[in-house]
Amino acid sequence: MLPREVYTFSPGPCILPLELLKDVKQRIPGDKKSILEISPHSAEFKSIVDENKRLLRDILKIPENYEVFFTEGGASFQFATVPINFLKSPEDKGLYIVTGNWSESALKEAKKYGKGVQVNELLKKGQVFSKADYPEEAKIDKSAKYLYYCDNETIYGVEYSKPPESYGVPLVTDMTSNFLSKPIDVAKFGLIYAGSQKNYAPPGLCTLIIRKDLISDKCAPNTPSAFHFSKYLKEDSHELLPVFDIYFMNLYLKWIRASGGVEVMHELALKKSNAIYSLVEKSGGFYRTTADKDSRSRMNIPFIIQKDDDAVNKSFLKEAEKNSLLQLQGHRSVGGMRASIYNGMPVQGVDRLKKFMTEFKEAVEQKPKL
Amino acid sequence: MLPREVYTFSPGPCILPLELLKDVKQRIPGDKKSILEISPHSAEFKSIVDENKRLLRDILKIPENYEVFFTEGGASFQFATVPINFLKSPEDKGLYIVTGNWSESALKEAKKYGKGVQVNELLKKGQVFSKADYPEEAKIDKSAKYLYYCDNETIYGVEYSKPPESYGVPLVTDMTSNFLSKPIDVAKFGLIYAGSQKNYAPPGLCTLIIRKDLISDKCAPNTPSAFHFSKYLKEDSHELLPVFDIYFMNLYLKWIRASGGVEVMHELALKKSNAIYSLVEKSGGFYRTTADKDSRSRMNIPFIIQKDDDAVNKSFLKEAEKNSLLQLQGHRSVGGMRASIYNGMPVQGVDRLKKFMTEFKEAVEQKPKL
Repeated sequence: MLPREVYTFSPGPCILPLELLKDVKQRIPGDKKSILEISPHSAEFKSIVDENKRLLRDILKIPENYEVFFTEGGASFQFATVPINFLKSPEDKGLYIVTGNWSESALKEAKKYGKGVQVNELLKKGQVFSKADYPEEAKIDKSAKYLYYCDNETIYGVEYSKPPESYGVPLVTDMTSNFLSKPIDVAKFGLIYAGSQKNYAPPGLCTLIIRKDLISDKCAPNTPSAFHFSKYLKEDSHELLPVFDIYFMNLYLKWIRASGGVEVMHELALKKSNAIYSLVEKSGGFYRTTADKDSRSRMNIPFIIQKDDDAVNKSFLKEAEKNSLLQLQGHRSVGGMRASIYNGMPVQGVDRLKKFMTEFKEAVEQKPKL
Repeated sequence: MLPREVYTFSPGPCILPLELLKDVKQRIPGDKKSILEISPHSAEFKSIVDENKRLLRDILKIPENYEVFFTEGGASFQFATVPINFLKSPEDKGLYIVTGNWSESALKEAKKYGKGVQVNELLKKGQVFSKADYPEEAKIDKSAKYLYYCDNETIYGVEYSKPPESYGVPLVTDMTSNFLSKPIDVAKFGLIYAGSQKNYAPPGLCTLIIRKDLISDKCAPNTPSAFHFSKYLKEDSHELLPVFDIYFMNLYLKWIRASGGVEVMHELALKKSNAIYSLVEKSGGFYRTTADKDSRSRMNIPFIIQKDDDAVNKSFLKEAEKNSLLQLQGHRSVGGMRASIYNGMPVQGVDRLKKFMTEFKEAVEQKPKL
C-alpha cells in the first residue's frame, strides 16, 4: 500500500487505500461518461454489482446456499431490518449478546417488533465494555429466531477472535467494522451484515450475506417494504444503490484479492494493532487500554494517558494533528484517544503513530510539571 | 454549462454538470486528505452540512418555521417515513393523489400504517397516466393528517405546474425528480422531500424540508427509529450521511446559485423541454407523447415513434447511442423512449438530440419500407 503524507485514524468514513483514490479519480471526470452518471438500469452497472457479488463469494468462500446482496443506508438500518425480517410475530424471540454500544442499540430496536432479549449481563451505562462474551448453552433459548452479536465494537474496541457458539439458533452478526479484515467461516452464520464505511468503500452502502432458507416474504407486520430482505431477491433493487460506492467497492475488492485476500488483511491488522498494544504495554502505565487482552480489537484501539488531568490527553491530540496524524480523538461517550486502523491504513501510518506516541511520552515525562 | 462529447439522458443517476465533475476530481485524490475520508464527526463535515442547509434556505427562500435535514437512502424510503411520522394511529388518515407509479407506490406503503386513501380516480394498470390532477374541495377530508402528491412523475412524464390546493390539510410532496428546477412557495407545504440523484447530487441522499410543528416524537407504533424525523433534530445524525454526496451537493447548490438560482433553472428546463415537445408536435405524428399539454414534464419526456412495428423504436435507440446520445430507452413498464433532462443537462445536449430526432425521422420516411 502506498504511504501518504497525512494519516487519518477516523473510525469511519475512514482512510482508503491511496491506490484506489488515484484509480477512482480517473473514472470521474471528462466530457465523456463519468462513473457518477451510470444508470442503475444499465447493463454496465448490473455487471459491476454482479462482479462485486462474485468477488465477495471468492474472497470469503461463501457457500452456494447463501445469498449476497447490497442495500442503501448504513449498518444502523440493520438494527431494524434484523428483527423485522426474523421476528414475524410479537411472540418471536431474538437473543442479543451485548458487548458495547452498537449491540445495545440493536437490542433496543429489536424490542419494538418482538421479544428482544439479552442473554449476557448488560453492563450499566458508565461502565466499560471490555470483553467478547461467549454465553453458555443454558442461556440460549433454542426456540429463538436468532442469536445476535457485534463482531467488533468500535467505541470500546472489543472484538471477537472467534464467533460465539449459537447451539443451532441462527447466528446474526454486525461485522460493519471488521468485515473483510479476516477469514470467516460463513457457514456458521445465518446472517452477516456490514456497512461500507470502514473496510471496503465510502459510507452509504451495506452488504448482507444471508442463508437462503432464512429469507421469507413474511416479516413483522406493518413494517417498511424498504426493509424486507425478500424484495431484494424479487425485483430490480439495484435502482436504489449508491452507484459511486458500488464502483469503489469493486476497486476495493479487487485490491483485497490482489493483496493476498483476507488472510493477508488479517496478518496486517494483527501486525498494525499489536504494534500499538505492545507500545502501550511497555509504556509503564503512561498509556492505558481497557479491553481484555483476548478481546481487544485489531481495528479500533481506544487508549488514554494516565495523568490526573485531561490536559495531557488534549495536548496529545493537538500535537498529533500537527504531525499529520488526524482524527485520533476517542468517541464522545468515552473520551481519550482512539486509533482506527482499518484495511486502508498503511503500516507506515501506524509506524508514524508509534513514533509519535513514544516521543510524546518522553516529552511529557521529561518536562517539569506545569 | 460546459458542453460534452457524450450526453446521458438517464432518469437518474443522471448527467451532472461537467464543471462539478472537474471540481470534485480535484478534491478526491492525493496523499493528503481526500473528501472521501472526511469524518462525519469532524467540524469540517458539519460545516459542509450546515452550509448546504443555508444554501437551500437561500435558494428556495425557506421560511424560518421550517426545518431542513438530510437522510441517507433514496426517496422510496420516504414512501414509508411519511405515514410512519404522520399517521400515529391506525385510525389516522393520509390522502393520496395518484398520478403515476411513484404516488401509487407511496399509497400502497401508507396503507400499512393507517388509512391511506386515494382521493382521485386511480388509473388501472396498463392505462396511461397523463394528467396532474387537482381534486376539488369535497374530496378532501379535512381531518386527514396530510395530502400527498408527486410533483413530477418520471415514468409517464407528468408534472404539476402549480401544487394542488389542500384546503388546510398539510401538503406533502415527493419532489425527487424536479427539486431545485423551479421556484416553489415552501409555505404552501407541510413536507417536501427529494432524493438526490436527479437535480443535485449522485444517488444516496435525501433532503427533507418540513414545517416544524409537524415534527413529533410520536410515530406509528413499532416502526424503525431510523425513519423517525424527530431523531434528526435530537442527535448527531450526520454520522450516517454519505459524505461524498453531501460534498457534491455543496458544489451543486453553489453552482445553481451562481447560475442565477432556481429561476434560471426553470427557464432552462422550459427551454430544453419545449424544444423537444415542439419538435414532436411538428413531426406530423411521427413522434408522439402522452401527457396532456398542461401537465407535461419539463424533466422527463417519454415519447414513441408511431409505427406499427417496434423495430423502429429499437433502431432509434441504437442509432442514438452511436451518436453519443445515451440512456434514451423508456421505462420498462412503458417502452419507447424517454429523454430525462435535469438541471445537469446542457442545452447543447438537447440540441444534439433534436438534430438527431429530425434526421432519424427523415431517414425513416425516405427509406422504402423494408
